[in-house]
Amino acid sequence: MKPFAIYALCFFLTAPLALPADAPLAGYSAGSAQAERDWETKFRAIPEPANLRAYMQRMSARPHHVGSPYDKDNAGWLLAKMKEFGLDAQIESFDVLFPTPKERALELVAPTKFTAKLQEPTVAVDPTSNQHDEQLPSYNAYSIDGDVTAPLVYVNYGAPADYEELDRLGISVKGAIVIARYGQTWRGIKPKVAAEHGAVGCLIYSDPRDDGYNGGDVFPAGPMRPKDGVQRGSVMDMPLYPGDPLTPGVGATKDAKRLPVKGAPTLTKIPVMPISYADAQPLLAAIEGVVAPDNWHGDLPITYHVGPGPARVHLKLSFNWDLKPLYDVIVRIPGATYPDEWIIRGNHHDAWVNGAEDPVSGAVAEIEEARAFGALLKQGWRPKRTIVLCFWDGEEPGLLGSTEWAEAHAAELAHNAAVYINSDGNGRGEFAAEGSHSLERFIDTVAKDVQDPESKLPVEDRLRAFRTANLPPGTTPQEFRARQDLRIAALGSGSDYTAFLDHLGIASLNIGFGGEDRGGIYHSIYDDFYWYTHFSDTNFVYGRALAQFAGTSVLRLADAELLPLDFQDFSETIGRYVQEVENLARDKRDQIIEVNRQIDDGVFAAIDDPQHPKQPPKKEAVPPILNFAPLENGLAALQHVTDLYERALAHAGDNGAAALARASLRDVNQRLILVERALTLQDGLPNREWFKHQIYAPGFYTGYGVKTLPAVRESLEQKDWKLAEEQIVRVGKVLENAGEAIQGATTALSQAAK
Amino acid sequence: MKPFAIYALCFFLTAPLALPADAPLAGYSAGSAQAERDWETKFRAIPEPANLRAYMQRMSARPHHVGSPYDKDNAGWLLAKMKEFGLDAQIESFDVLFPTPKERALELVAPTKFTAKLQEPTVAVDPTSNQHDEQLPSYNAYSIDGDVTAPLVYVNYGAPADYEELDRLGISVKGAIVIARYGQTWRGIKPKVAAEHGAVGCLIYSDPRDDGYNGGDVFPAGPMRPKDGVQRGSVMDMPLYPGDPLTPGVGATKDAKRLPVKGAPTLTKIPVMPISYADAQPLLAAIEGVVAPDNWHGDLPITYHVGPGPARVHLKLSFNWDLKPLYDVIVRIPGATYPDEWIIRGNHHDAWVNGAEDPVSGAVAEIEEARAFGALLKQGWRPKRTIVLCFWDGEEPGLLGSTEWAEAHAAELAHNAAVYINSDGNGRGEFAAEGSHSLERFIDTVAKDVQDPESKLPVEDRLRAFRTANLPPGTTPQEFRARQDLRIAALGSGSDYTAFLDHLGIASLNIGFGGEDRGGIYHSIYDDFYWYTHFSDTNFVYGRALAQFAGTSVLRLADAELLPLDFQDFSETIGRYVQEVENLARDKRDQIIEVNRQIDDGVFAAIDDPQHPKQPPKKEAVPPILNFAPLENGLAALQHVTDLYERALAHAGDNGAAALARASLRDVNQRLILVERALTLQDGLPNREWFKHQIYAPGFYTGYGVKTLPAVRESLEQKDWKLAEEQIVRVGKVLENAGEAIQGATTALSQAAK
Repeated sequence: MKPFAIYALCFFLTAPLALPADAPLAGYSAGSAQAERDWETKFRAIPEPANLRAYMQRMSARPHHVGSPYDKDNAGWLLAKMKEFGLDAQIESFDVLFPTPKERALELVAPTKFTAKLQEPTVAVDPTSNQHDEQLPSYNAYSIDGDVTAPLVYVNYGAPADYEELDRLGISVKGAIVIARYGQTWRGIKPKVAAEHGAVGCLIYSDPRDDGYNGGDVFPAGPMRPKDGVQRGSVMDMPLYPGDPLTPGVGATKDAKRLPVKGAPTLTKIPVMPISYADAQPLLAAIEGVVAPDNWHGDLPITYHVGPGPARVHLKLSFNWDLKPLYDVIVRIPGATYPDEWIIRGNHHDAWVNGAEDPVSGAVAEIEEARAFGALLKQGWRPKRTIVLCFWDGEEPGLLGSTEWAEAHAAELAHNAAVYINSDGNGRGEFAAEGSHSLERFIDTVAKDVQDPESKLPVEDRLRAFRTANLPPGTTPQEFRARQDLRIAALGSGSDYTAFLDHLGIASLNIGFGGEDRGGIYHSIYDDFYWYTHFSDTNFVYGRALAQFAGTSVLRLADAELLPLDFQDFSETIGRYVQEVENLARDKRDQIIEVNRQIDDGVFAAIDDPQHPKQPPKKEAVPPILNFAPLENGLAALQHVTDLYERALAHAGDNGAAALARASLRDVNQRLILVERALTLQDGLPNREWFKHQIYAPGFYTGYGVKTLPAVRESLEQKDWKLAEEQIVRVGKVLENAGEAIQGATTALSQAAK
Repeated sequence: MKPFAIYALCFFLTAPLALPADAPLAGYSAGSAQAERDWETKFRAIPEPANLRAYMQRMSARPHHVGSPYDKDNAGWLLAKMKEFGLDAQIESFDVLFPTPKERALELVAPTKFTAKLQEPTVAVDPTSNQHDEQLPSYNAYSIDGDVTAPLVYVNYGAPADYEELDRLGISVKGAIVIARYGQTWRGIKPKVAAEHGAVGCLIYSDPRDDGYNGGDVFPAGPMRPKDGVQRGSVMDMPLYPGDPLTPGVGATKDAKRLPVKGAPTLTKIPVMPISYADAQPLLAAIEGVVAPDNWHGDLPITYHVGPGPARVHLKLSFNWDLKPLYDVIVRIPGATYPDEWIIRGNHHDAWVNGAEDPVSGAVAEIEEARAFGALLKQGWRPKRTIVLCFWDGEEPGLLGSTEWAEAHAAELAHNAAVYINSDGNGRGEFAAEGSHSLERFIDTVAKDVQDPESKLPVEDRLRAFRTANLPPGTTPQEFRARQDLRIAALGSGSDYTAFLDHLGIASLNIGFGGEDRGGIYHSIYDDFYWYTHFSDTNFVYGRALAQFAGTSVLRLADAELLPLDFQDFSETIGRYVQEVENLARDKRDQIIEVNRQIDDGVFAAIDDPQHPKQPPKKEAVPPILNFAPLENGLAALQHVTDLYERALAHAGDNGAAALARASLRDVNQRLILVERALTLQDGLPNREWFKHQIYAPGFYTGYGVKTLPAVRESLEQKDWKLAEEQIVRVGKVLENAGEAIQGATTALSQAAK
């Protein structure tokens, strides 16, 4: 903390942003815009870094995973805090399957012996690192029990493409235990793909290239992962469905109907365990056989070989398969005008261990937001819409708290939920937002009104500068500057927005700051107050900025006369996704034709190295040229009505400041809320019904990474041309549905503004 | 050797390539083509892997660097061998400055103590690794003497761009000792650029990422660099001029006028020494300060910091500054028809230590070529042109033997030399040729007639397959397939072609096989017979292929009625270079405008991380839009006469088989030889007069890497717009000169074919 004390001081002395008092505000009449700006200014003056720091110290003082005493304690403390702020809060509880380790053993049995330590040691300067009695051991939640001994194969990140490379090398993992490094795919993909290829066990280790000494000094000298640090984490098959494995689609209430544990669809098919690089190095060094391809090499001081063997390992795992209680803390601030339109804000409170960064750094911002709302209420502010503030439990094992709550309240949410805003951990640096593109313009306007703590510029200016200096390849500065709003990325998965967006079709955002500091304490015992206050947002000014940003967003959405959703950026972006899947189809086809030709021409035979032979790829049937017209027609319809809505909006504005204020906009707002719903289909994605959204989904083989137009894109990626053709029709219809929903809002708006 | 014995056998039993008996041969009348093909077939049947192996064992039996007893012994043995083959051979000797170490010391003096070992240990299984009395210690030749103690700064590869990055980080190397990793630039660039930035000493180490354990198992378990292995090498300022530092431009004969050693222009300005990664690791680990940028990280198990300090090192170096004798072995096979047209073939014989790979694997091929020429001569073959076979001494310290010989014989060579063909080490895998583009089509035809030992396909087919499977980004398979000939790369520097091509304007090629095996023994004591026969072309079939390839090339050039130079590929390729420099000028300009705008817009200030501050780049004057018309006009003239020459050639062909045979082609051939000379200018490149070629040169700041149209390209890279504009005019004139030279050949050919 010391080095930043003076530095921090100068932030606190800075004047707030000067706002243009008469700037128009989307969704607000001229008269109400000024009042709104006043409330927002008051709101942003309230959050205090000192409070954020104190909350973090309290919440991360002890391990607080699902089912732990301190998890419940934190929930109780949060409830009391909310009441102290004058808010209406309650705890909602669910009972979920949450396995914890009974036995963990890993040993190298040949060619030499080595027993893995599987233990993160106490670090003397770090006061919470010695709480071993309360810490969850390092493990992957929802691994099945297992006791296997087998040769070891190194599989790089364990992604599908890595197995294609193994095929080329003539190496099978059938009957083997694979060792994969963390990174690139979500961890749950690694055992899933390994099992699909016949492996009997899976180890996942943190290579020092990914978050160890390669990135900086290791903890406690620096922020990076020390040799014994382990990344815990869930490996449930979340791309199939998140939440309690036993109650898909319904809330895990006391009396919910439950699947049997054995064979629950989202448990892994093989045992899997995470290990440190100190434990991994002797295993990897004992593997011989082919030298791993260049881009498979990590930063351990060894030659990376693929195997299989002669390294053989014995992996033994068993778990307590108990139900554990979840404690979601839910706050409601009722809306004065539209009580049945909800603006929902959430961040989880559970952690793998002490979790100062993940999730407490985000949760403490939400606490200050709640305090600020409480203060504003006392000053007479009344939101038009209902605000729901959520502190989720059980995010770490599989988005349990948010998913069970969303499933339990699905009917209400389907009707009432307008927008969900999530955060999950926070750091120093650039603002980032991902989410529904109908909120892109809105979030850009909020970013103009919140100050970046370091540059003192509006967050939007800093982000624009950052993007200018880091243009993606192929984008010219001219192209970048020509677009009015900063793009936001689409949402995959990895935090609590998933059920809201993907299952229920609620327009969602995930926001936060970061990028300036690196760390290697993710899901380890070293993610704690000591680490955060030495190596991240040490003076909590970015925590304050997050509270200011999220709070302004909630306030502005809750107070607006007309919900400030925008469909221009939205439909332009969908147009890009349509172009992408068309290019993907064409590229896949061209690629198959070219590889087939190369096989026929003997290219692979000609260049094969007899000392390092590779299997040539197999010839594939050339795919048909697909008919993308249904998707393009849907897009054209969507873009057409988008323009009509924009015109209706401009027209409503032309009628003068009073028009919006006078009109009854209830019907328009209700219709706007339903636009995101129109992007879902009740029977979901092919083979994963829980995921209903047809524009966004986490990839079935990426986990975190988003697939836009997932039904079309994934069927192309998996070369299921017939399915792709069906999905093009289906998703084209979804775009038409969305167009009709916008058309409905347009008509209602035109009526209201008359 | 064992694993490949059976495998090797099947090579030896394979039938030779079936050649189309009546295929036309460029430069040959139909009648003589068949005779030539017969001689070539006989030639290719002669080289024997067993001989190559025996020669290598003999030549690499002891260390044989310049001035060593075994260097002289090898030269004498080569001379005797040539005479044994019935060839006219002699030794030509020169006396050159060649410093050898007197004192070498390196120690870390703070914050802890460590003394570098600076010694490559004996490896038990490797029988020549214990010849410590004869081995040159690890050092960089032409480093000046020095005794410095200073803080250490890590400078990545030590290239100019790395110092730009250091500027952004606010770090100066003034008064510091820099430590750079081997790779990316030629090693001599590292101390040169370091000195330009004020450093007082330079260490160069072999990072395990570059040729150590990252690439495979280390010697003797595998081919890669062991922890104590060191890359020796020259650091003279070869991009200024290669060869003896004391006799630039003239042969270093006994009575040559010599510069004083002190201040000789190509000695380094600061002391420099190469070290192993075992010696480097404690030094690098002791550096603190800024964490190095991501792409600066090597594969040592440490966090790479930049410094400066707290690591302080003491470096002490002194050398014996003696003249040493060179022994070039030169063989002449006089031409029967055109004795004053010379086809020259060379490979060096000196090594840093035992040098089995570098250079013996290439030299032994040339020995077998000589044996085959001797055998053919006994069978009645007489080349039309004179063949000169050269075994150079002193390549390693600075291309000494070839440069001094070329300078000593400059007048004869200017008149007589038609083509120079170089090799320098050889391995398993793809064929590679670099050189004058007027030889591109020729070398492609030779590649159709030599068999690749592994695939049994013509070398050209295998290379085409390889390139098909490894297209450069942005090239479509269609574009690649549309071009008749495989492209060859332009020549930079790094071996003995330099004086021939760059100083004298003789069309040159550098050829060899490789790419399938990796190694980390370059310029170490482990580059020896044991290593080569375990980890490279262990059965010498690629050595045979090199002898077959180089021999066929020499034979075909020496026997041709009309020199088979081609100017279509040549002028098309020059057109690409012209386009490249135009793009470079435009991109530089656009980039400066954009960066200036970003500075004005406050982009760098907006995104600066106060905890890791970076200096913004400095605003630069926007360059003028340059007039490239002189270069384009020169190119247009060149392309025009190229077409005329091609038509004249076709016309000569149309006149029937006898036309070429009847005609006196002496004048045409003489004029063809002079086309490459027309690409030179007597006053050389700006600031480096020795380099006369205006199309190819090693980069002043890359060393190995070529810069095409160097006078224009480097003035653009160095942002000297005025110089660039002058050089555009000058080089445009050179293209016109080349056009006139081709025009002369065209007229002569039309006359001859009438």
